[in-house]
Amino acid sequence: MRLSRYFLPILRETPKEAEIVSHRLMLRAGMIRQEAAGIYAWLPLGLKVLNKITDIIREEQNRAGAVELLMPTIQPAELWRESGRYDAYGKEMLRISDRHEREMLFGPTNEEMVTEIFRAYVKSYKDLPLNLYHLQWKFRDEIRPRFGTMRSREFLMKDAYSFDLDQAGARHAYNRMFVAYLRTFARMGLKAIPMRADTGPIGGDLSHEFIILADTGESEVFCHQDYLGFAVPPADTDFEDAAGLQGLVDHWTSRYAATSEMHDAAAFEAVDAASRVSARGIEVGHIFYFGTKYSAPMGATVTGPDGQERAVHMGSYGIGPSRLAAALIEAGHDDDGIIWPDEIAPFHVMLLDLKTGDGATGAACDTLYKALTLRGLDVLHDDRDERAGAKFATADLIGIPWQVLVGPKGLASGKVELKRRATGERELLSIEEAVARIAG
Amino acid sequence: MRLSRYFLPILRETPKEAEIVSHRLMLRAGMIRQEAAGIYAWLPLGLKVLNKITDIIREEQNRAGAVELLMPTIQPAELWRESGRYDAYGKEMLRISDRHEREMLFGPTNEEMVTEIFRAYVKSYKDLPLNLYHLQWKFRDEIRPRFGTMRSREFLMKDAYSFDLDQAGARHAYNRMFVAYLRTFARMGLKAIPMRADTGPIGGDLSHEFIILADTGESEVFCHQDYLGFAVPPADTDFEDAAGLQGLVDHWTSRYAATSEMHDAAAFEAVDAASRVSARGIEVGHIFYFGTKYSAPMGATVTGPDGQERAVHMGSYGIGPSRLAAALIEAGHDDDGIIWPDEIAPFHVMLLDLKTGDGATGAACDTLYKALTLRGLDVLHDDRDERAGAKFATADLIGIPWQVLVGPKGLASGKVELKRRATGERELLSIEEAVARIAG
Repeated sequence: MRLSRYFLPILRETPKEAEIVSHRLMLRAGMIRQEAAGIYAWLPLGLKVLNKITDIIREEQNRAGAVELLMPTIQPAELWRESGRYDAYGKEMLRISDRHEREMLFGPTNEEMVTEIFRAYVKSYKDLPLNLYHLQWKFRDEIRPRFGTMRSREFLMKDAYSFDLDQAGARHAYNRMFVAYLRTFARMGLKAIPMRADTGPIGGDLSHEFIILADTGESEVFCHQDYLGFAVPPADTDFEDAAGLQGLVDHWTSRYAATSEMHDAAAFEAVDAASRVSARGIEVGHIFYFGTKYSAPMGATVTGPDGQERAVHMGSYGIGPSRLAAALIEAGHDDDGIIWPDEIAPFHVMLLDLKTGDGATGAACDTLYKALTLRGLDVLHDDRDERAGAKFATADLIGIPWQVLVGPKGLASGKVELKRRATGERELLSIEEAVARIAG
Repeated sequence: MRLSRYFLPILRETPKEAEIVSHRLMLRAGMIRQEAAGIYAWLPLGLKVLNKITDIIREEQNRAGAVELLMPTIQPAELWRESGRYDAYGKEMLRISDRHEREMLFGPTNEEMVTEIFRAYVKSYKDLPLNLYHLQWKFRDEIRPRFGTMRSREFLMKDAYSFDLDQAGARHAYNRMFVAYLRTFARMGLKAIPMRADTGPIGGDLSHEFIILADTGESEVFCHQDYLGFAVPPADTDFEDAAGLQGLVDHWTSRYAATSEMHDAAAFEAVDAASRVSARGIEVGHIFYFGTKYSAPMGATVTGPDGQERAVHMGSYGIGPSRLAAALIEAGHDDDGIIWPDEIAPFHVMLLDLKTGDGATGAACDTLYKALTLRGLDVLHDDRDERAGAKFATADLIGIPWQVLVGPKGLASGKVELKRRATGERELLSIEEAVARIAG
């Protein structure tokens, strides 16, 4: 992509309304624009990041056996009356009347709707286990939305819902998602620690939040430092192996870890002092087992092997990709801007033509562009008629992992400069060497 | 994907509420489920089709130089007051009050919001031309939604918006989308004919609808039969070549073509009788040039080369992927079910294990599955414990282009049966031959 043909509205000044670094950088880097309180448009660079995040989420959901569908944003109120949550949910639910004065709402979550879908079609234990997920925009009318996409009103959520015959099956389903979440966050370059959590308005018996540590985190968390070194389950993990998954989950819950709501000071004191980590954390995922809380009142039953009908055991599993985009920046930035992990970066490589209009630098950029694109890399070519300093600043701000600086002086001796955004390391290389290093 | 692990809720009976064939088949094939009047969940098979449709749309939008972003569903009423459309839009607009009693709405379209984004950042003609598009769910509170996803209330739309310095630039932008649309529909196996159209509530001077012919179409259309043979512009069309694009558009508007609203009976009579096509049509795309209708009242101006500020000339360009899914079925089905074009099919191949539990047929299906998947094909393996007849019916109903029938009798002589859904042609082939034929 040529930057001159792209839409990347960089802000020179730091927006005053932004209280946290990710919000400031997302505005400055032209990733988002606020359209109303807590409601954002995702500009092209931001959308690319969001898509990278959702691609990884989808791959890991599918690997764990979940099946994707897509539920609508607008839901009828009746569904929520069946579960009893319509009145319980409070003002965070955006309630709507349509032209016929029918009561509707903009879904804040989908337990009721997915239970309705399940009960309409599934009648036998033979069709279980089942895990249905979707990626859809949700709305929660926060009284005071803030921190950009970290706590917005309209936000993207991946929400999965599992259906099993009994508690043992549901535990297996829960563990599948637990392990999928470990893999999902690790692939984004994040160390996410599962912490026993309160179940809140979803309800239920068993729940974990996945928390990443970041100095600017919203809440205080406490954990054993062993978690920082635990190995993440590999891609070939057998998600059908219930005992194997339980072993992984046992390992990942074997040390102390708690958010402030669930913190037990005495238990934490029992951890040897050198291993106690007390830090700020950001919640990036939340999983719940809640048994028959929705299936029983809504009549989502199946016939078991014994011919008896019973309400299915359910769980739900959420990740907020729009919040993750911000969390990734909280975890990866410096004074000059964003530092994207390779897996999430909106482009892999940025080419900086340091003398636009000079035939030689333009031709070298074209050669690099073709060679890198052929290797499946996504390249942003800064061909704007701007001085070199502005191009350096833009490249650092938007945080593309590799920068290739193409100037007339280097080219005279057949070299371009390759810069790694994360470390600032620079090397003078031939075009071929630069391509090989990046693709390598 | 193994069907036993998938979620494909086939209906045996024909749903009574469905008035048209696409609605019936989408319900029967487990593609969609109605959650409220005109509001549908897209079940896994339906979502795969929707994604195939949006993939093609994105590729052709990008090829024509449009840049993708993503605007939110909820919009503030103030934006629509600026353009004057808040009061004009009527009851189709879903109006919402948030917890602070601020007036909001669920976007039925995005001219105002994209104009707000444009004016916030773009100040100079040097940043033009610009075309921004997104794929987002819209809501139009139709008084009587019907025909399934053909005329639903919550629907997916690709809407692109072009910004140019003057009318000539805007015409080039219009022609880019015109040609992109011809390519988009052709790639889906559809013959779409551009017809001069009324501009409706969008407003403006120039507009075309893209109409496909289908016996079950919603409206009467009239055109010259030459359109059915016109060559579609190739993938290497130069979208920068304004004159070349104008030539293509002139060619594609050189014969008579009109919807009933714009029909001129006298002009149609002037076409020689043998070339007159009078048929039913389905609108699948609509493009508009509307000049400064939004930019002038909303102050979306740029500085021209002469230093003067002027309001930009705009156009908007819509395709409804959720409506297209239905239109594709109207155009491609028989008594047994859906017939997907290869480019849109949710899976490329369906494997029918005609004796589940038989070691040999299962092993042959596994071999086929691996070989086809290695070639990048998406395969659905019907491994359910069902009789062969039910598997035949399901395969025909959901319309996967290739079926491979794997039964013990054929296997005994080393053969499987390959069936082409569209033609019903069948061949007895070895596994290797079948793979080569499908991948070929």
